[in-house]
Amino acid sequence: MVDLKTQSCEACRIGAPTLSDSEIAKLIDEIDAWTLIEKPVKQLKKIFNFSSYAEGVNFINAVAKMSDTEDHHPHMVLEWGKVTVTWWSHKIEGLHQNDFICASKTDNLYSAA
Amino acid sequence: MVDLKTQSCEACRIGAPTLSDSEIAKLIDEIDAWTLIEKPVKQLKKIFNFSSYAEGVNFINAVAKMSDTEDHHPHMVLEWGKVTVTWWSHKIEGLHQNDFICASKTDNLYSAA
Repeated sequence: MVDLKTQSCEACRIGAPTLSDSEIAKLIDEIDAWTLIEKPVKQLKKIFNFSSYAEGVNFINAVAKMSDTEDHHPHMVLEWGKVTVTWWSHKIEGLHQNDFICASKTDNLYSAA
Repeated sequence: MVDLKTQSCEACRIGAPTLSDSEIAKLIDEIDAWTLIEKPVKQLKKIFNFSSYAEGVNFINAVAKMSDTEDHHPHMVLEWGKVTVTWWSHKIEGLHQNDFICASKTDNLYSAA
């Protein structure tokens, strides 16, 4: 088991390899209920629910702060009562271990909220 | 001419009429470069560009604060360098004058940023 939430993103350069299907299958077991989508590149997506608008806004801010620290930024959708977070690595048009690290850290921020 | 940015949203109830095409055509001239989309209900959409991630986060917070004041909440997408804002009235599944008021106030917040 990899403790993703304690790791940090490494620099991701254009041309770096995307994770293989078997690497993704292994890592997806280490994060909680993220959906693997292809749109058209592979991405990790999860909806986080809240009982107020303000809680969603606070969560967006917490994830934004973490993503600036990691220098890796997700696609986030803010609506009343929910925030949808999607991670992928633009530079390689697919998934990198960084995306799983950030997904795990996102879960951690939700648990702490 | 209607000065939308100085108005406030009125309570919108289920069953209230959506704006007609001619009302929309008139109001859309009062806001700056918002796109009318049908997805499948009519919505107003605009992309706001920023030169840093932090500026986009600040803008999301400013629009969120205004939307809580108006008790009318948009769909907002935060990505590096841009925020996409979409307004429509869920209760009536279409456009209400409230959406144009909030679009105008969103432009005002962008101008002030």
